[in-house]
Amino acid sequence: MEMPVPNPAVLARKARLVERLQAVLPKDAVIHEEVETRAYECDALTAYKCPPMVAVLPASTREVSEVLRICHAEGVPVVPRGSGTSLAGGALPTADCVILGVARMNQVLETDYENRIIRVQTGRTNLSVTGAVEEEDFFYAPDPSSQLACAIAGNIAMNSGGAHCLKYGVTTNNLMGVTMVMMDGTVVEIGGGHLDAGGLDLLGVICGSEGQLGVVTEATLRILRKPEGARPILMGYDSNEVAGAVVSDIIKAGVLPVAIEFMDRPCIEACEAFAKAGYPMCEALLIVEVEGSEAEIDLQLGLIKDIAARHDPVELREAQDADEAGRIWLGRKSAFGAMGQINDYMCLDGTIPVSSLPYVLRRIGEMSQEFGLDVANVFHAGDGNMHPLILFDANKPGDLETCEAFGAEILKLCVEAGGCLTGEHGVGIEKRDLMLVQYTAEDLEAQMAVKDVFDPAWLLNPAKVFPLSESESRRAHKIAAE
Amino acid sequence: MEMPVPNPAVLARKARLVERLQAVLPKDAVIHEEVETRAYECDALTAYKCPPMVAVLPASTREVSEVLRICHAEGVPVVPRGSGTSLAGGALPTADCVILGVARMNQVLETDYENRIIRVQTGRTNLSVTGAVEEEDFFYAPDPSSQLACAIAGNIAMNSGGAHCLKYGVTTNNLMGVTMVMMDGTVVEIGGGHLDAGGLDLLGVICGSEGQLGVVTEATLRILRKPEGARPILMGYDSNEVAGAVVSDIIKAGVLPVAIEFMDRPCIEACEAFAKAGYPMCEALLIVEVEGSEAEIDLQLGLIKDIAARHDPVELREAQDADEAGRIWLGRKSAFGAMGQINDYMCLDGTIPVSSLPYVLRRIGEMSQEFGLDVANVFHAGDGNMHPLILFDANKPGDLETCEAFGAEILKLCVEAGGCLTGEHGVGIEKRDLMLVQYTAEDLEAQMAVKDVFDPAWLLNPAKVFPLSESESRRAHKIAAE
Repeated sequence: MEMPVPNPAVLARKARLVERLQAVLPKDAVIHEEVETRAYECDALTAYKCPPMVAVLPASTREVSEVLRICHAEGVPVVPRGSGTSLAGGALPTADCVILGVARMNQVLETDYENRIIRVQTGRTNLSVTGAVEEEDFFYAPDPSSQLACAIAGNIAMNSGGAHCLKYGVTTNNLMGVTMVMMDGTVVEIGGGHLDAGGLDLLGVICGSEGQLGVVTEATLRILRKPEGARPILMGYDSNEVAGAVVSDIIKAGVLPVAIEFMDRPCIEACEAFAKAGYPMCEALLIVEVEGSEAEIDLQLGLIKDIAARHDPVELREAQDADEAGRIWLGRKSAFGAMGQINDYMCLDGTIPVSSLPYVLRRIGEMSQEFGLDVANVFHAGDGNMHPLILFDANKPGDLETCEAFGAEILKLCVEAGGCLTGEHGVGIEKRDLMLVQYTAEDLEAQMAVKDVFDPAWLLNPAKVFPLSESESRRAHKIAAE
Repeated sequence: MEMPVPNPAVLARKARLVERLQAVLPKDAVIHEEVETRAYECDALTAYKCPPMVAVLPASTREVSEVLRICHAEGVPVVPRGSGTSLAGGALPTADCVILGVARMNQVLETDYENRIIRVQTGRTNLSVTGAVEEEDFFYAPDPSSQLACAIAGNIAMNSGGAHCLKYGVTTNNLMGVTMVMMDGTVVEIGGGHLDAGGLDLLGVICGSEGQLGVVTEATLRILRKPEGARPILMGYDSNEVAGAVVSDIIKAGVLPVAIEFMDRPCIEACEAFAKAGYPMCEALLIVEVEGSEAEIDLQLGLIKDIAARHDPVELREAQDADEAGRIWLGRKSAFGAMGQINDYMCLDGTIPVSSLPYVLRRIGEMSQEFGLDVANVFHAGDGNMHPLILFDANKPGDLETCEAFGAEILKLCVEAGGCLTGEHGVGIEKRDLMLVQYTAEDLEAQMAVKDVFDPAWLLNPAKVFPLSESESRRAHKIAAE
């Protein structure tokens, strides 16, 4: 990324913009000193860094509208930012942009238990949405690993999932309506506290649009009654193929666990060394969790244990109490931390048909040897959402580049197997140039033409989602047409 | 609707079109004699009729592409048609259009039990999708009342639901991918047998787009394992308010029945007179059905019976066997037929927040007196999808017009209560002019701009979904720009 050239014209442009922004926002909500804008130079894809020109922290839809109106008038790109936890560079600044952070917009606007909905400002963190309703025994279902930190704004932008999305769906299945500010400052309401409405499903196209179409400032979310209880079971198998067959059989049996997590041997070893959860050493480990009343749990786990036992497990361990349940999850939940202790890693996010699991894991193993980098696999197996972690050494010259090339090959493999580039992390800058593996030029043309409708000048979240050459030429074309 | 003027220019235009269509389709697949095109003059909203210029029955994606390419070149509007069961006039022809019927495209292309998907041509009927997989104990979940006749093409166009969508979601939640032909004949693939992919969610915007964006010729659908069993329970209450509270309490308790159906007194009386199902005479009747193993059913019904009993029911009847289950459903399933025996009726399809049920029912009752027309209510209560049936006499001058005015007021009431114009029937021609009740001019502008992307000449399914003045001026504008 290029740093801004501090020539007089650029400085004058920045000064004018800051002045206009300060006229509509509190003083401390406009961050423009370089030492402070650095706080926004990257998200959780830390390999890429670039400080923005300015960062703003509006506190209301009205303030967001003012900011966008000004940036639109000045022709300044805007990068919306939730909590900056994107693993795909979804909130990476450009040097000439304004970062629009929603962190101060974290209020609960309405809770309506009778209709099972909550309306929040989108800077609110995922976990604190559940926090706002748990006294009444409700919860918000999508649960990304980063849920302590990540904002609803980013969840909507990326259509985030989580371990429990097998049963409850991802963000799009739990989002009822939004207030969104268009790039020109217009405020629109889409959807609401009801079933989907007539006309084109704009809510559907906005969820997962990665900040390309507008800035979502408020959201109406579905909340659910908390289940009475939950219980995990741990199963170890001698091969990935057999563990894959167990997953398939559980789903085919008509049981719907809340989570089916899969870990391969490299992952098991790292987690065990780190967390000492007492995992058996084997080729593949499954953690399956079911929810409900005690009677429902017994019934579902009974069916699952029967299936598990038929496939000759190395270990089959049902949690007898909360402590044991905690230990079963402990290793899985510390998987990313455990890997980070041993190695630098890149976390991928491809999705495949469940039946391709054994084939894809075998091919990843072969490619691991070709590229000379280890891979640990941990993923949401029930819905085929893989998270291969490629291990590399950031201090070894060339290792990151090899890792990126290997990662691209894995994602191509996912697409070839009938899957796709991303399950829940999004495209961001990370996968923008791989979009042509998944889509034809005509497909992308249609997607970009839809962006034209919402953001004709291509000022929103630049350089992301679409192949860089495509989005840059689109933007240049728009500027030339003005 | 105007009939085509048989002037020489129009006849020559038609003759040229027929010749071109016959060059790419089998002879019997091009229907152009007026006596035969009459078969396509309406769908299930039979109050509106207009024979098309031509009807074609292609048998493959390639043939659909040829037809659209020709119509695009000739500037002829195309109205896609599934089985013609739309209650909103979604497949109503215009006099200058080609009806593109998908009835011959009814093949199963692939079944994949391991990944729980089936790929079909979209002319296949809803029920026969389940028919293709039930030997392996799978089923396709969305179940519109018309499922014996309605085509998957129409289900996708309208994002159809059904009694069981409370548990399993509507079409959009069970649709994984489509092959779609654009108006210019280009064939595109969107989605596939995996979780949703990167980029903008075009599959989401296509599902429910009522044939405005393209013609969907093939679809990949999610199939589910059949539950071991199901059992309904019948409850009668003395007031709509109390029955509404029971629905709310069941949902809040965290139980997820497959269906919660609600009938009010006029509906109960009509069904009982027609089907003699042994329903109690009371103000409100609920049929709640749960699924699973015997043990799961007992457990869930136990919770539901406790809730039901707390609200002082007039009757509480659990089906003890398949016969009794059949009788409980008999009245509900014959509701529309029962109404049709007594009266002409118009079936509405508004959706409201569950908590507004008692208020909306009371207001409908008051409006019924103002307009002097009776209303019977039968609906999917669990998700607030109302189906008020306004009873009228088609032979009484002015009655249809009064009925339409009353219907419009009910739909406005739904929107005011925080709901929307349509839950599953779609907008079609029926509700196009009410769209401004739900959406601002800016909202509609965005939706129409998205249509511009897919169908720049506005040739697909004309005069529907958007207010007539809007879509006609849009189309005129496009023609003028050429």
